[in-house]
Amino acid sequence: MDIDKIINDIISEILKYIKPTKEEYEKLLGIYEFVRDRIAKCIEGHFAEITLQGSVAKDTFIRGESDIDIFVLFNPTKYEDKWFEENFLPKIVNCFKEFKSIIQYAAHPYITLYVDGVEVNIVPAYKVSSPQQIKSAVDRTPFHTSYINSKLSERQKDEVRVFKYLLKSWNIYGAEIETRGFSGYLTELLIVAYGSLSELLKAATTWIPFKTCIDIEKYYPSTRDCLRKFRRSVFIVVDPVDKERNVAAAVSLKSFSIFKLLASAFLRKPTIELFSSAPRETLDTQELVNLVNKRSEDINSCILGIEYEVLNKVPDIVWGQLRRAERVLRNVLKSYGEKYIYIDTWLSKDLQKAIIFIEILGCKNKYHLHIGPPAYETINALNFIIKNSDAIVGPWIEENGRLYCLRRKRYDYATIIRNALENINLTALKMTKIISDDELDLLPLNDNEFRVWFTEFLMRKKISKLGKIPILKL
Amino acid sequence: MDIDKIINDIISEILKYIKPTKEEYEKLLGIYEFVRDRIAKCIEGHFAEITLQGSVAKDTFIRGESDIDIFVLFNPTKYEDKWFEENFLPKIVNCFKEFKSIIQYAAHPYITLYVDGVEVNIVPAYKVSSPQQIKSAVDRTPFHTSYINSKLSERQKDEVRVFKYLLKSWNIYGAEIETRGFSGYLTELLIVAYGSLSELLKAATTWIPFKTCIDIEKYYPSTRDCLRKFRRSVFIVVDPVDKERNVAAAVSLKSFSIFKLLASAFLRKPTIELFSSAPRETLDTQELVNLVNKRSEDINSCILGIEYEVLNKVPDIVWGQLRRAERVLRNVLKSYGEKYIYIDTWLSKDLQKAIIFIEILGCKNKYHLHIGPPAYETINALNFIIKNSDAIVGPWIEENGRLYCLRRKRYDYATIIRNALENINLTALKMTKIISDDELDLLPLNDNEFRVWFTEFLMRKKISKLGKIPILKL
Repeated sequence: MDIDKIINDIISEILKYIKPTKEEYEKLLGIYEFVRDRIAKCIEGHFAEITLQGSVAKDTFIRGESDIDIFVLFNPTKYEDKWFEENFLPKIVNCFKEFKSIIQYAAHPYITLYVDGVEVNIVPAYKVSSPQQIKSAVDRTPFHTSYINSKLSERQKDEVRVFKYLLKSWNIYGAEIETRGFSGYLTELLIVAYGSLSELLKAATTWIPFKTCIDIEKYYPSTRDCLRKFRRSVFIVVDPVDKERNVAAAVSLKSFSIFKLLASAFLRKPTIELFSSAPRETLDTQELVNLVNKRSEDINSCILGIEYEVLNKVPDIVWGQLRRAERVLRNVLKSYGEKYIYIDTWLSKDLQKAIIFIEILGCKNKYHLHIGPPAYETINALNFIIKNSDAIVGPWIEENGRLYCLRRKRYDYATIIRNALENINLTALKMTKIISDDELDLLPLNDNEFRVWFTEFLMRKKISKLGKIPILKL
Repeated sequence: MDIDKIINDIISEILKYIKPTKEEYEKLLGIYEFVRDRIAKCIEGHFAEITLQGSVAKDTFIRGESDIDIFVLFNPTKYEDKWFEENFLPKIVNCFKEFKSIIQYAAHPYITLYVDGVEVNIVPAYKVSSPQQIKSAVDRTPFHTSYINSKLSERQKDEVRVFKYLLKSWNIYGAEIETRGFSGYLTELLIVAYGSLSELLKAATTWIPFKTCIDIEKYYPSTRDCLRKFRRSVFIVVDPVDKERNVAAAVSLKSFSIFKLLASAFLRKPTIELFSSAPRETLDTQELVNLVNKRSEDINSCILGIEYEVLNKVPDIVWGQLRRAERVLRNVLKSYGEKYIYIDTWLSKDLQKAIIFIEILGCKNKYHLHIGPPAYETINALNFIIKNSDAIVGPWIEENGRLYCLRRKRYDYATIIRNALENINLTALKMTKIISDDELDLLPLNDNEFRVWFTEFLMRKKISKLGKIPILKL
């Protein structure tokens, strides 16, 4: 049987569940028109245009998962950012005062309204005649919307939906710092670039990190030129609307790798099962406690939790600081010779509390293997020997010419961690405590969402599903 | 104070202890003349020449440590190897029957006589007019002797003695497989090349493994040509007598590194203390048992001993096979994911028994960290995921994009070792048992020489002396 046929059957099957219904379209359109008309009245004479943007405007959204993005465009010669903040935002909030509203300050301020259970984002922006004239990143959005609408057929938009759904299932959808995955616009461009999901998946299996440039409008004479321009990017998709911009800049090596694996697994054995990530068996409180204790006994590992109160509840700011803290901790622990560390962070749904968890393998060993320089690099080698001449064992020279020694561990992990974190300025976070693995009762084990997360932290079984698809034989 | 002056003072001091006395010279010469004359009578009419070779002939030996090497040269057109074995050896043994004698079969057969407490080696060889015409490696020896005698002054010969003594102190003197260090001829050539010990030490600090070629007679137009010729050699000293031969071919990366370290340490702080390797504190039986137990508790390590009965007592053959077994064990254990292994072998002085000891760090951990391929190398990655989908933890993807998992160890070290060693043909050895660290009573702990060795196996403190020389500040 033809692989494209199988894939198309799967796409059709998925679409039954995720393609928005006629009722949903009507409801969203109704809300849009209602909000648009009220904005128009509310700031009459000020705006240049009120437009629908985002996945509703592009019709690439998934059933039940759409926000409505309304961009209110202003003449850039007449209005300034200051006016948005001081006049536009308060006026809009006031005009919609029967609805719940939140003023969001990310890179650019906007308002989120909750109308009939739907999130409506009202974003002030400038109306410019070309992407080269934008004053801020949001001004680019209308150009993205036009580009996608001019390129994608209805069928392709359906394939975008399926693609987004696949990425969501594996937690690699979204460019936010928490995920560092594929943004909505990126998914759309990839379907533009390859024409269909099936061709995209085939191409993805050949992508090489730091070596792949997808340049739909052929702005760069060669892949080499493109790679030179976006040197440090894992993955490059040149924005058709702005050749200086890599739409895939946020994609991490991990997200990139997961997508490649997914693509390969799917092509080997196309199955609808890959549209959900591994079913997590969630452990109950007692099972989690037992697992941590057993782990500690079996591999001398320890698990530490660094608990924070979240002061600034903007997700990208919180996640940015949490990931930075993770990196610092990883580096500091490595500098102490701890080679096998696993770090991940749980952030409560209400953004009140974060806990960075670290598992250090072998942390309960009393000695520590220090790996020195090659003994024939004499200056470094002598320094290592002098520094470690009081080691418990060695320094000795291995057959490979390298120096090693075993030293007694003289440090306390909590102190190392505390010192490391004191040196970085985490304005959005306030450390409340360091929880060791004999204080598990301090963890929010009553919170089901936490237990789900903590089970995955301990088991890390998510991608193993790719190895368990039935009849997936190589 | 001038460094060369300090070094010369140290050399003078060392020479007081190691330069042969007049009495020793007279005794050795007397023995040589006695043996020579008797050989001449014994095989009258057969030989072409009887000559003194080796370190006595070159006068580069250390007090009390000399063998006498007597080469009996034959006309290559009249005699064959077969004649040496069938006629020469029995005749000589018979002529010296009041002395203890051993017929040695290494690459070339020869006789060792014990005369007045001195080892006298009687080696049959061919008299050839140039090194290009040699029939076996021993025929080259007379050319080496002439070369060294034509190049070294008396003072330089004294420096060779000091150099040899330094290398002996650190167990890197001798080209045998056990040591893989610097042969006597190599030490002499290095003094020829650099003129003095002090210049040699200075040069040694700049040597780079696999990149250093010392070509005294400038046979090769450039270092590059020389390196190309001796591609896999850690260290290259072209034989002035045969440009195809690397006199330093036996030098291991470890011996090379130790010498470089010694040279650097000595130049930073020239001291006579470096002329003996770290004073070993030898532990007694109970201390050794305690140390092994403590090690096992503190770092989950285990120590295994593989005991052999030695069948063929030629040291280079035994050591060759023991080192091969070490390499096989190291590779097999690595293939099981054991990254931190320390292996060394004890061979009893009487060559009756050998024990290969292995310390495996973390071997008592019940899980095992498997490091997989990068997740973006999709084919390998999927194979890893499929193979390890039943792992206890993972497979998961780290920030670096690589796959990891923790698996329960399902193997028994003794079985792995037994299987690995069954597959290699060790003709000189017969395995008698595998000793685990709860059977230490099976070790020869009553043998003082073993305890010295086993203490060093456990402590590995030898080179740490280089970091402990007083006032050795960087």
